[in-house]
Amino acid sequence: MALIVQKYGGSSLESAERIRNVAERIVATKKQGNDVVVVCSAMGDTTDELLDLAAQVSPVPPAREMDMLLTAGERISNALVAMAIESLGAEAQSFTGSQAGVLTTERHGNARIVDVTPGRVKEALDENKICIVAGFQGVNKETSAITTLGRGGSDTTAVALAAALNADVCEIYSDVDGVYTADPRIVRNARKLDTISFEEMLELAAVGSKILVLRSVEYARAFGVPLRVRSSYSNDPGTLVTGSMEDIPMEEAVLTGVATDNSEAKVTVQGIPDLPGEAASVFRLLADAEINIDMVLQNISSLEDNRTDITFTCPRADGPRAMELLRAAQEEKGWLNLRYDDQVGKVSLVGAGMKSHPGVTADFAEALRDGGVNIELISTSEIRISVLIREHDLATAARAIHERFQLGGEDEAVVYAGTGR
Amino acid sequence: MALIVQKYGGSSLESAERIRNVAERIVATKKQGNDVVVVCSAMGDTTDELLDLAAQVSPVPPAREMDMLLTAGERISNALVAMAIESLGAEAQSFTGSQAGVLTTERHGNARIVDVTPGRVKEALDENKICIVAGFQGVNKETSAITTLGRGGSDTTAVALAAALNADVCEIYSDVDGVYTADPRIVRNARKLDTISFEEMLELAAVGSKILVLRSVEYARAFGVPLRVRSSYSNDPGTLVTGSMEDIPMEEAVLTGVATDNSEAKVTVQGIPDLPGEAASVFRLLADAEINIDMVLQNISSLEDNRTDITFTCPRADGPRAMELLRAAQEEKGWLNLRYDDQVGKVSLVGAGMKSHPGVTADFAEALRDGGVNIELISTSEIRISVLIREHDLATAARAIHERFQLGGEDEAVVYAGTGR
Repeated sequence: MALIVQKYGGSSLESAERIRNVAERIVATKKQGNDVVVVCSAMGDTTDELLDLAAQVSPVPPAREMDMLLTAGERISNALVAMAIESLGAEAQSFTGSQAGVLTTERHGNARIVDVTPGRVKEALDENKICIVAGFQGVNKETSAITTLGRGGSDTTAVALAAALNADVCEIYSDVDGVYTADPRIVRNARKLDTISFEEMLELAAVGSKILVLRSVEYARAFGVPLRVRSSYSNDPGTLVTGSMEDIPMEEAVLTGVATDNSEAKVTVQGIPDLPGEAASVFRLLADAEINIDMVLQNISSLEDNRTDITFTCPRADGPRAMELLRAAQEEKGWLNLRYDDQVGKVSLVGAGMKSHPGVTADFAEALRDGGVNIELISTSEIRISVLIREHDLATAARAIHERFQLGGEDEAVVYAGTGR
Repeated sequence: MALIVQKYGGSSLESAERIRNVAERIVATKKQGNDVVVVCSAMGDTTDELLDLAAQVSPVPPAREMDMLLTAGERISNALVAMAIESLGAEAQSFTGSQAGVLTTERHGNARIVDVTPGRVKEALDENKICIVAGFQGVNKETSAITTLGRGGSDTTAVALAAALNADVCEIYSDVDGVYTADPRIVRNARKLDTISFEEMLELAAVGSKILVLRSVEYARAFGVPLRVRSSYSNDPGTLVTGSMEDIPMEEAVLTGVATDNSEAKVTVQGIPDLPGEAASVFRLLADAEINIDMVLQNISSLEDNRTDITFTCPRADGPRAMELLRAAQEEKGWLNLRYDDQVGKVSLVGAGMKSHPGVTADFAEALRDGGVNIELISTSEIRISVLIREHDLATAARAIHERFQLGGEDEAVVYAGTGR
């Protein structure tokens, strides 16, 4: 008998009908002889509707109250799923994050899990009940304040619970039926992967794959919780995310997939005095404002005036704020010019095989050249190459790389739209 | 500086605009130098929408999950009111029932408050914050199960908190601006009362006045918490419910008001063997099914066959179930006949003055006779007379009694519709 944690995203729970379907799947899993713990996101657009209400009553809603507001969404879906399961004759019990022992820091809106003490969940499992836990939420033990875990929080709840309960697998259900070699909406013959290592999944998540949130994959790897990415609309086994790259025999190590991302903007600070600490001051400014930077390029100093340029990418949503901060500091710092570009895209190739197969970078660059795509920035890790290009070149670039490294399957991929929280 | 508990019903919170209005009133109360604790019902139709969703996923939703579902409604309104207050520059903090220390029995859907330990609320008040507490909900300490308090639960939360905090007054806001001498929709010159005693309010609540729930008035009387019934749409001071009848000088003791109720049905069991215990068996049958009976009449035994009739009233919603139970027992018990009538209405006169003014019952009966209204059942308490009549005679009867005892004011009353939870 296995212990299975299942996480269902908002699109899988968007109506009473979808909730009944999910309940049938849960009960079927239970009837196969498994212990089942379920983590639910809020139904469909509930979270957006609550955010809209908040905006109507307050221009800057306090984060603590926002958490109180938003956690209501998961309570609702939670209770409805439990009801639907009981109406099928199985026993269910729902738990808030607090009741399930999800203890967090007190940072409202983006709390971190510090411990999971699922004693009550274990008791209910011992009583042969299916346990339904509200995702995305926890509680700060000292202040008993209710917190939320930020983007992808329900995935993180599921993985953390799976780790604490020593579950055999954590299944992540959405409307996507697995991890593909590329976005099937862009590359028609993208192939679904049967398995992928944590490291590769981390790189894919980091470079823009929306299937799993980076944080939940990091958590799963740290605690050795196998993940299975599945669709709540089919019985396809999906993709298993597990093990380390070291477990993959070198001969079989291959390139895994192509990821595309058009959510970043490019910022260039020109004419920075080329002295120690000058580059650091740019990044400190952004770090203090909690703006994450991704790719960075510093040109060599031009000999004439002993100045240098720094180019970086950051989330497009933070772009205007980053520019505002830089403009405010420009005169004092003596920077000559600031440039902003949000028409950029990033395409990445990920695969453990990169380590053992020389020439991947050359092949990658040639594929883009043959596709007529110009490279603006390059960044690499041991198992990833990412380049910044024009946004309108993204699809061409992804197809060219996918083709060059023969990642495709023979069939065209089935395409689904949207993802849950 | 006073400590004021304010309770707002669902209709007072039905939109973002209404929530902003309520927030302004709360902040104004605070700025007058008071400590303020606010108890909120769920917004407008939220509860009905959640009940509808529950019905769609389960024919008989488990009570425990229903509580988890419904309490989300108060969390939402709670957080939104706190946000609206903070946007006006005051400090607010919201609390779930559990965080506010509302401890209850574990009877889901209709839990009783066993204790209120509002330590966290007190701390927040000491920090000069406005405290917003989710109404209608509590927690069972032993199992940490989330419970709801049943009909009128938010009023009960407010009164219980006011008692535990030793508040100076508990203000109950709805779309009704006070307690009237009669339903203003029926009696146009009904007069708003400035004050009413707990006992009189209890009698009015018991005989069908919808303004305050019986349970919250009982609680307020037991703990000596003055209540003020007010409208969130006006600045009228409303009606103060306070003190004991004994505090009212006898000379001033008057008749308070007329209440009408068309939510009951009349059941008659005919030809019951006139032996000890036979009447008890009828009532035991209903009690075991948790059907409350209100008025009861037992006729004297007819000498010929030594049998008797029992007539009683019960909530109309429970009428069909009561009849089913009685029919199932009829043959075994030897009852000759069962009769059911749901076209009845009850009109009541309440007032402390009844004790010291003889002849009230005679005047009451004459007023009905003059109005052409036939009396079917009579029941009285020390300060109340109720009679069962035809439902279509209710308005005529209420007006006739109101007129006879000169309860009216000179102006016509302003009429509002609907009430909150």
